[in-house]
Amino acid sequence: MNGAESLVKTLLNNAVDVCFTNPGTSEMHFVAALDAHEKMRCVLGLQENVVTGAADGYARIIDKPAATLLHLGPGLSNGLANIHNANRARSAMINIVGDHATYHRKFDAPLTSDIEAIAHPVSHRVHTSPSADDISTDAAQAITCANTYPGQISTLILPADTAWTNTRNPVVAAKPAPGPVAASEEQISEIANIIRSGEPTLLIIGGRCLREEPLKLAGKIIAGNNNIAMKAETSNGRMERGAGRQDIDRIPYPVDQALEMVKNFKHAILIEARDPVAFFAYPGKPSRILPEDCIVHNLAGINGNGHLALEMLVEELGSGNVAPAISEFLLPPLVKGQLNADSLGSVIAHAIPENAIVIDEAITSGRQFFPATATSNPHSWLQLNGGAIGIGIPLAIGAAIGAPDRPVISLQADGSAMYTVQGLWTQARENLKITTIIFHNRSYNILKSEMRGVGIENPGPSARNMLELDNPVLDWVSIANGMGVEAGRANDCQSLLSQIQRGLASQGPYLIEAEL
Amino acid sequence: MNGAESLVKTLLNNAVDVCFTNPGTSEMHFVAALDAHEKMRCVLGLQENVVTGAADGYARIIDKPAATLLHLGPGLSNGLANIHNANRARSAMINIVGDHATYHRKFDAPLTSDIEAIAHPVSHRVHTSPSADDISTDAAQAITCANTYPGQISTLILPADTAWTNTRNPVVAAKPAPGPVAASEEQISEIANIIRSGEPTLLIIGGRCLREEPLKLAGKIIAGNNNIAMKAETSNGRMERGAGRQDIDRIPYPVDQALEMVKNFKHAILIEARDPVAFFAYPGKPSRILPEDCIVHNLAGINGNGHLALEMLVEELGSGNVAPAISEFLLPPLVKGQLNADSLGSVIAHAIPENAIVIDEAITSGRQFFPATATSNPHSWLQLNGGAIGIGIPLAIGAAIGAPDRPVISLQADGSAMYTVQGLWTQARENLKITTIIFHNRSYNILKSEMRGVGIENPGPSARNMLELDNPVLDWVSIANGMGVEAGRANDCQSLLSQIQRGLASQGPYLIEAEL
Repeated sequence: MNGAESLVKTLLNNAVDVCFTNPGTSEMHFVAALDAHEKMRCVLGLQENVVTGAADGYARIIDKPAATLLHLGPGLSNGLANIHNANRARSAMINIVGDHATYHRKFDAPLTSDIEAIAHPVSHRVHTSPSADDISTDAAQAITCANTYPGQISTLILPADTAWTNTRNPVVAAKPAPGPVAASEEQISEIANIIRSGEPTLLIIGGRCLREEPLKLAGKIIAGNNNIAMKAETSNGRMERGAGRQDIDRIPYPVDQALEMVKNFKHAILIEARDPVAFFAYPGKPSRILPEDCIVHNLAGINGNGHLALEMLVEELGSGNVAPAISEFLLPPLVKGQLNADSLGSVIAHAIPENAIVIDEAITSGRQFFPATATSNPHSWLQLNGGAIGIGIPLAIGAAIGAPDRPVISLQADGSAMYTVQGLWTQARENLKITTIIFHNRSYNILKSEMRGVGIENPGPSARNMLELDNPVLDWVSIANGMGVEAGRANDCQSLLSQIQRGLASQGPYLIEAEL
Repeated sequence: MNGAESLVKTLLNNAVDVCFTNPGTSEMHFVAALDAHEKMRCVLGLQENVVTGAADGYARIIDKPAATLLHLGPGLSNGLANIHNANRARSAMINIVGDHATYHRKFDAPLTSDIEAIAHPVSHRVHTSPSADDISTDAAQAITCANTYPGQISTLILPADTAWTNTRNPVVAAKPAPGPVAASEEQISEIANIIRSGEPTLLIIGGRCLREEPLKLAGKIIAGNNNIAMKAETSNGRMERGAGRQDIDRIPYPVDQALEMVKNFKHAILIEARDPVAFFAYPGKPSRILPEDCIVHNLAGINGNGHLALEMLVEELGSGNVAPAISEFLLPPLVKGQLNADSLGSVIAHAIPENAIVIDEAITSGRQFFPATATSNPHSWLQLNGGAIGIGIPLAIGAAIGAPDRPVISLQADGSAMYTVQGLWTQARENLKITTIIFHNRSYNILKSEMRGVGIENPGPSARNMLELDNPVLDWVSIANGMGVEAGRANDCQSLLSQIQRGLASQGPYLIEAEL
């Protein structure tokens, strides 16, 4: 058995059985080892940001890490932005990065780079295996790291000679990963007192507490209590929502709206959430969103056990029998005619099938989608978290592979879609049930409003040239067809709804160019 | 004047007048400043590896840096692989990376990352401006760094508040950049003695010595001297070749061929070149290419003045009147019928017009192109240098913008083309005269031979799944059309030649899917 085989066996032995990959020469022994172990599902991406974004989507849906297999520093670099996003989404991921043979590095061959340095800014743990004998132990440690609650980025660099050298070291079982940290009785008691005090209090909820059960617990706490509100963080890895669930709104992305929403609270309780900050700084506006006199209480940090804390808090408050405000299935009126931000929300609300996974990289087009779909069929909502655009198409891949029985609807801004457009090919290759809607506004629309924000009402030709995508106009049907994905167009609400229904009925991926 | 304007004025004042860009919110003040200065040509790429690869192509053709404008850590990360390639090609480049406002960083907003850490592995210099008053001086220093012979990567990180804050500091003139280092009389004399000794000696030539004049000087040294040979490095940023020039072959990429080529030399003279090493390590094969008993003489390092050293050497040897072996215009027979590695070379040789720029990311399909085109019309040959695939389409953009009057022929492997396929849109938007030939072999063909190299003759379904691009087959005509690029197909030599001629006659970009 060589080091490469010991890696694959260790991964499989520890329930890591999906590998998103774009390998190169230095990973050929790993490819051979993967080839010999058919239980490992290998999914090829034609650029590494597809690979890492797919691993993120998989982890968000299945709560366990996939492996990625990447080719030296440049392969890692290409996938870095979506590792950044996964990190911000608190996803689990094990990146296997091939490197030159240990003795070859000092010759500084063209593909040589400082892989550890590139990996560190987006990884919780970075380790380079020194020899074939170390691989199984190192891989087990990488798995433990990735599985650490709520999920971590673990990057394991394997020089080519560690892959091809024989080892007699056995496969290693990964140690159990550290679970979430429980709140103390004192914390619970303190928070309960704040809630009983009647002072205006905001529960800020994030991470795994945006699943069905913890949200219902939070719902018990706020039900009938006018002084207590709850909001989700602005960006969330996964939210469980729709009919039959406790609805929760998010702290808005636009800083002025966010400031307005929270301005009257005297206490903020963080539950797997962070003290909210503005996405960007703007001249004369604060970085922190909460008012200065609002007291922040950290009930459960982002690695805390928010679910348990909510259970304890409900018990402490005696709210166990309170009924949370469960959403009934209720669709907004189906708007007809032109596609715009408002009418789109109505169409999406009607289109979401039961148990769907919704991927949201709709950016400006999508600001109205979230409230419009609050009482649609029950679904999971996966967002861009780290602000690095180009996640939607890959995220849909990973989600569809993690949950092959669930329909995936991918809400996708055109500018962001172009970042990882190669992912459409993987959707076709794996025949994934993904319906992608491209919101074709032919611009980086968000930047046009940011331009106005810096005082440029009428940008000149040079600025327009950097913000408009209208010359040439992208033909998304051609692009999708060129990568093997069936596609159609919609230019009003009726045709969009029927196109989405067609996509959902398809056995593979389908793409809709929605003309705004 | 705010910091952003002081940046743009300083760039323009120091002859940096092209900016390849994909800006975001944190760069909006730069966009506004660029908008106010129409002498700066701004070129939008729909993903940052297009942006940085284009800057590389521009620098290779025009011998001066372009600026890039990138959006925080993820924007830099997306462009990192082609910065790596540019670094290995010794290209000049000034990366301007926007960051959060200085006071906003500590809040760790979603797009926050350690930009300096990400930039360091691919940059000669990384600097973060602390205030608006520093920008003009910092930009001038970045320009000096980039212009340092033969070209360096300079990354300047500008927090958003340094852009929007006013400054009264004047525009700064960049200090002259350090020029190439001259060889000493003693070195010249020592090398001349080696050449006179008659011992088998190899001149290894790289960098700017692969231009017309220095190659003719090297040609004078080897002419009529059976014991002296010359070879270019395996990968080169730019070579001037074809009819009327001194031909030079490259050290082959396959390690066995490289070892065979150099095995009998007792001396190697490096002229803007490095001691050659294998691209990858292979079990049982050496990392260094030269024989162990071959003495390596560093006449001019990669930042040395090889051209001057060759002049001095020619004078010392009294070879001034020797005629180098200038190539006469001579085309190989035009092969007809099926497209394959050999016949393709013949078609390309016939197709190259006078003064063309040829971009070579043909990978396996292109191994025969280089010898086949040695005596074609005179042209520049630009290669992938750093091994990070996905450079061809962007490199063609930058070359075409640097030399708008020269036709560009882009020889492109299909797998590599998919990495930066978004660049086709920029080719259309800027209406660049680029004829791209996609060698459509529907696989990562280089990896299939590497699989055989590790002993896997018959890869199973999982390995094939990682190496084949045939399910689904990419339709390059659809993809190109979808991004606004006219396209056609060729399935034999005659149709390929006529398609290339059609592309060259077009006023904008044209893409040919060549079926292998």
